[in-house]
Amino acid sequence: MVNFSILFPPKLIDLMDDTVPGIGTYEDFNTIDWVREKSKDRDRHREITNKSKHSTVALLFSISDAFSGWLLMLLIGLMSGALAGGIDIAAHWMTDLKEGVCLNGFWFNHEHCCWASNETTFQERDKCPQWKSWAELMDGVSEVGSEYYTCNHFIIMFWALLFAFLAVILVRAFAPYACGSGIPEIKTILSGFIIRGYLGKWTLIIKTITLVLAVSSGLSLGKEGPLVHVACCCANILCHFFTKYRRNEAKRREVLSAASAVGVSVAFGAPIGGVLFSLEEVSYYFPLKTLWRSFFAALVAAFTLRYINPFGNSRLVLFYVEFHTPWHLLELIPFVLLGIFGGLWGAFFIHANIAWCRLRKNTRLGHYPVIEVLVVTLLTALLAFPNEYTRMSSSELISELFNDCGLLDSSKLCDYTGNSGSTSGSVNATAANGLGARLAGPKLYTAMWQLALALAFKMFITVATFGMKVPSGLFIPSMAVGAIAGRLLGVGMEQLAVHNHERDIFRGWCSPGADCITPGLYAMVGAAACLGGVTRMTVSLVVIMFELTGGLEYIVPLMAAAMTSKWVADALSRESIYEAHIRLNGYPFLEAKEEFRHKTLATDVMRPRRSDPPLSVLTQSGMTVEEVERLISDTTYSGFPVVISQLSQRLVGFVLRRDLFISLENARRHQDGVVSVSAVLFTECESPASPGAPPAVKLRSILDLSPFTVTVHTSMEIVVDIFRKLGLRQCLVIQNGRLLGIITKKDILKHMAQMANRDPESILFN
Amino acid sequence: MVNFSILFPPKLIDLMDDTVPGIGTYEDFNTIDWVREKSKDRDRHREITNKSKHSTVALLFSISDAFSGWLLMLLIGLMSGALAGGIDIAAHWMTDLKEGVCLNGFWFNHEHCCWASNETTFQERDKCPQWKSWAELMDGVSEVGSEYYTCNHFIIMFWALLFAFLAVILVRAFAPYACGSGIPEIKTILSGFIIRGYLGKWTLIIKTITLVLAVSSGLSLGKEGPLVHVACCCANILCHFFTKYRRNEAKRREVLSAASAVGVSVAFGAPIGGVLFSLEEVSYYFPLKTLWRSFFAALVAAFTLRYINPFGNSRLVLFYVEFHTPWHLLELIPFVLLGIFGGLWGAFFIHANIAWCRLRKNTRLGHYPVIEVLVVTLLTALLAFPNEYTRMSSSELISELFNDCGLLDSSKLCDYTGNSGSTSGSVNATAANGLGARLAGPKLYTAMWQLALALAFKMFITVATFGMKVPSGLFIPSMAVGAIAGRLLGVGMEQLAVHNHERDIFRGWCSPGADCITPGLYAMVGAAACLGGVTRMTVSLVVIMFELTGGLEYIVPLMAAAMTSKWVADALSRESIYEAHIRLNGYPFLEAKEEFRHKTLATDVMRPRRSDPPLSVLTQSGMTVEEVERLISDTTYSGFPVVISQLSQRLVGFVLRRDLFISLENARRHQDGVVSVSAVLFTECESPASPGAPPAVKLRSILDLSPFTVTVHTSMEIVVDIFRKLGLRQCLVIQNGRLLGIITKKDILKHMAQMANRDPESILFN
Repeated sequence: MVNFSILFPPKLIDLMDDTVPGIGTYEDFNTIDWVREKSKDRDRHREITNKSKHSTVALLFSISDAFSGWLLMLLIGLMSGALAGGIDIAAHWMTDLKEGVCLNGFWFNHEHCCWASNETTFQERDKCPQWKSWAELMDGVSEVGSEYYTCNHFIIMFWALLFAFLAVILVRAFAPYACGSGIPEIKTILSGFIIRGYLGKWTLIIKTITLVLAVSSGLSLGKEGPLVHVACCCANILCHFFTKYRRNEAKRREVLSAASAVGVSVAFGAPIGGVLFSLEEVSYYFPLKTLWRSFFAALVAAFTLRYINPFGNSRLVLFYVEFHTPWHLLELIPFVLLGIFGGLWGAFFIHANIAWCRLRKNTRLGHYPVIEVLVVTLLTALLAFPNEYTRMSSSELISELFNDCGLLDSSKLCDYTGNSGSTSGSVNATAANGLGARLAGPKLYTAMWQLALALAFKMFITVATFGMKVPSGLFIPSMAVGAIAGRLLGVGMEQLAVHNHERDIFRGWCSPGADCITPGLYAMVGAAACLGGVTRMTVSLVVIMFELTGGLEYIVPLMAAAMTSKWVADALSRESIYEAHIRLNGYPFLEAKEEFRHKTLATDVMRPRRSDPPLSVLTQSGMTVEEVERLISDTTYSGFPVVISQLSQRLVGFVLRRDLFISLENARRHQDGVVSVSAVLFTECESPASPGAPPAVKLRSILDLSPFTVTVHTSMEIVVDIFRKLGLRQCLVIQNGRLLGIITKKDILKHMAQMANRDPESILFN
Repeated sequence: MVNFSILFPPKLIDLMDDTVPGIGTYEDFNTIDWVREKSKDRDRHREITNKSKHSTVALLFSISDAFSGWLLMLLIGLMSGALAGGIDIAAHWMTDLKEGVCLNGFWFNHEHCCWASNETTFQERDKCPQWKSWAELMDGVSEVGSEYYTCNHFIIMFWALLFAFLAVILVRAFAPYACGSGIPEIKTILSGFIIRGYLGKWTLIIKTITLVLAVSSGLSLGKEGPLVHVACCCANILCHFFTKYRRNEAKRREVLSAASAVGVSVAFGAPIGGVLFSLEEVSYYFPLKTLWRSFFAALVAAFTLRYINPFGNSRLVLFYVEFHTPWHLLELIPFVLLGIFGGLWGAFFIHANIAWCRLRKNTRLGHYPVIEVLVVTLLTALLAFPNEYTRMSSSELISELFNDCGLLDSSKLCDYTGNSGSTSGSVNATAANGLGARLAGPKLYTAMWQLALALAFKMFITVATFGMKVPSGLFIPSMAVGAIAGRLLGVGMEQLAVHNHERDIFRGWCSPGADCITPGLYAMVGAAACLGGVTRMTVSLVVIMFELTGGLEYIVPLMAAAMTSKWVADALSRESIYEAHIRLNGYPFLEAKEEFRHKTLATDVMRPRRSDPPLSVLTQSGMTVEEVERLISDTTYSGFPVVISQLSQRLVGFVLRRDLFISLENARRHQDGVVSVSAVLFTECESPASPGAPPAVKLRSILDLSPFTVTVHTSMEIVVDIFRKLGLRQCLVIQNGRLLGIITKKDILKHMAQMANRDPESILFN
């Protein structure tokens, strides 16, 4: 048999499943038992290792099993990288499609269309005769008049509404889980929760399509968060091809952790940042092996994306930057100010967004998701169009704001009154040359006003957008808000320096003849601060930004801003947007970051409470099938402790409701002679059955003989720690050897909610 | 009282110490109880928070307490950065001092001496009249003859021996813990072990001085590993100024984890790599808060070092590199070969070094550490001098090997026969120009031979050097070995490409007119592979190397090599050099990386064994002081379980030997009327003492009422997991509510050693 095992590899793996089917699986919306899953995997591994000593084929199988993890990572990296590239290209094309079409071929986007054209000059790369706006294609609309402008506006609104409508309809019809950013749910899933279909193939397909639609519709949302969801879907689907990962919920979660690193890696072109994001922000159980594999997958994905080259510049993101001017120590003050702004924005955004989502959930507003999306899209399109900086896509905006003004830059943001000399009576010509060149021109002032308006607009529309029934990430909108604020402050600082360059404070710093302040760096620091305020990322945020700039030089400003932002935001409310959404949805998520600091004991949390009826237990012998079945139907507990006798309450083990139910049903169906009065035995040895009695149902195999126990005196902080670190579902409470109660994960979460003066009933799932 | 508390802050913190002094502390060479330490810290924190609600001063104190962690990190960063800079400068100066002296001032090193000189030309930057070698200063020695050469050699040997002698004498006389790299011990300390004085001020002072001496003596060792020890010493000393960290072993270990990140950060100028090193390689308990703080400290240290600018080039390390040529996919084959070499070298090095250390430990060799050091120094100096590449310091060698040959490079490694055209009949002139320029010249061939000899020499001398009684790191020697091998292969590949550039395989790759192979990159990949083989680092290694090159481009080669190296080395032996040394020293270290895979149960490991006398337990009442004291003196256990009665064996709690001993002694001394027949009570309620009986000693306060328990059926893999994740010292084993045995960390380690067919008695400490 073994010799054929390579042809029938599942045979080798079916070792654990010689019991009744269904035993050891989980129901939807339930928490897994990490300890059991990890044990299962170790058993499986041990079995394979043992077999591999006996035959060459089994040895080969064992080697292929060991490398299957790497193969899986490779596939995830390739698939996610390819998908991310496809999404980038499609979103780019469709965003341009709103404005016009390429006569050379409708599949070209604006930029490619004009690249292919020979009639493009360097100054006006974006203008070429092959690219026609829809308004131009229509008869009777002159190209300069306000009529053209209005017509253009209408056409863009039409496309935006169409895209948004398609997105929301597709989500509603095929994959309701495809909406939102997905990160809160992925965090919950990684912590051991089961949401069937959340990472399925339909979610993947629909999310990919609707993400492109949503981004192209011009809504204030980003594709970066949803890319994490897309990568996790890829990972989950690919897991199906590897028995090792398909059958084991804990192993699969290791893969999903790596996949979330992949998502960020392709979103920002930052493999190391992605791994740290996974480690810091989303993962629950992150062994070192996963660290290494995540890194591998993140790199593969980044290089796949680079190979696809969606931006045509061999960069992985639109807003890669290089700065050349060093920063001055005094600039830390504005950087910290940006940090404070980021923290305030984060706290405001979370508060407002959660309030809005709660409103949507509790009122009739939630019944009309399609209309909501259409109204927000319409509003966005109406208000965004008149302002150049809101009309462009958020990532283009960020790219422009991060940009350091070069000599040839034609952007309004780089409109400085050339070399005409400084207006303030400067002492020497060199100084005038250097600093006068940075004096703001009229266009720059206009741009500042437009940016200020864009800031206000973005801040409010983002609150309404995140949480709608379309795929929506908030990395990019948050970064856009921060980048605008940063650029405004940066230009302000620059003008301050230009106008006061003889003052002592600026003299040592702005050496004559050199740019001394980089407004682009301020934009970047602002973006980091705002993103940090919303997500409360720290190291990963700084590393992502570091990978965007590529210089250690600028880590300190980023760090100062990220730190301030986190402190300010944490002082206002402890939760990140993801945690807030997890709580809003009532998922059973045990936050690993925050320590439980209350001085309660296990006895205060365990059930039954003092006033409740005693704990429902099974005895290891002496119960009949009927009694057990009645207990199952009378209660809703997920499992029952097994004791020696009701009197002694000495603990033997723990049995899960689902396992018990399946086993009894199976025994009734397949075991001869089992009737209602048959005894149910959890004991090891055969008890001498009285002659004539029906055969007993022996259930020791489904009994967990090593349930976790704590004493009644154990402080809850230790219990919480055990639950977090070991990933338990439940824990039994004993005193002096007597079983007294039980604590489940849900009990702990309810207790924590109560301690934080929140409604304990907000925890919905087990 | 509270109003003065800012003047007497310890008052506020002494909350926990209202019991007998000494309770809750640990003896030397013992393992800490993480759960208890963390509880203590949470209690402390809770107390401060509660107090802060009642008075402003206490609120201020609570805020300063919260920020003290950051302040500590700042100080560690500053101090370590400054020390690292000082060590760099001093080692540089003393290395040059071996050769000669600067006439302008003896405190200048060779380079600075010639910088100050005006008579230096660009070509011969190293030659200037102000710098005199010792031989030149001596009369009657002509500058060109072999006599001069011999004389020089003798003087260098003299200095080397002097430095080495001073180093070993200082270490032996003042701080025996200052020898070696320190990383194995730091790993053990971070896992919860106590080694008093290992991170003390004497160790710091002596290690700093002797590290400079050892590096300057020309021995084949690096300063990178010991820098981690130096940073940890700084951290430990600075912890003494913060009560929060001084009093709590767990909190202090968080700081030490951050400090090891700082050490790597200054060693390689790689803050992110340092944090990942700490996370991956040395740390045991690494909460996210520590991640963020480590990063902060690592950055501060890196910037302090940059401010000091020890290398005069505003880089943090001597071997920062920038490559310009992209690599070709086919080059992955030589990179993987380098990985295999690195893995083999790693396995060989570990095996040979451990065998050598064991020899030193078990034979009379170990009694003469001074002579050993002198002999090895003499051998090194004798053999290294004739070869240019072993004469220079290892980090200079690495720097030269990593270097990409530029146009003005005068190094022998860059001796290519100029533009004289390719020898093989090339098709067109362009190709000849580009590739012919890379044809090896005669000097390059000489260099290759010298490098090959240097490789053999380094490989053997490093084995003998690491483990001697001087500070010695093995990062640099390992990297040197790899860099030499890599450069050899790189030049080989280059010449292969040059000679076969018309072949199909090279045609697509080596485009005419461009360098197509960068031997410096091969050197870097080789260095990574060898370092990976020895230390088994993965992500951190790649990130450190990435930070040295600064381009994502070269991550893939590094990763391929690091991965191959780890696989090859792991296939030969599972342990890294640090783990091997930990095992050699018998430290109780529970490796977090490797999973325990044997199918044993708690009952197989617990004590007492079947043949042993029953477990020594205390009863909660009914024992006298004398009986307890006899139990303490008769046994050597670190703690005793407390049960209700000997008959029922129902568990009440656990009491530590040390606490029990101190409490009883204290009671005898300070409590009136306590005599040998006084009862010892662990119960809560007063038992009605018979009239006339001496007063009872009540010890419930030192009783741990929530000891960890597992059942006899718990599989050892779960037990090991619990010990690792929660940081336990011991765990009680129960069956059906009856106490049956106990498992300590030492039992687990002994069991693991037994399972791996090693001597279980090699585990020396508790």
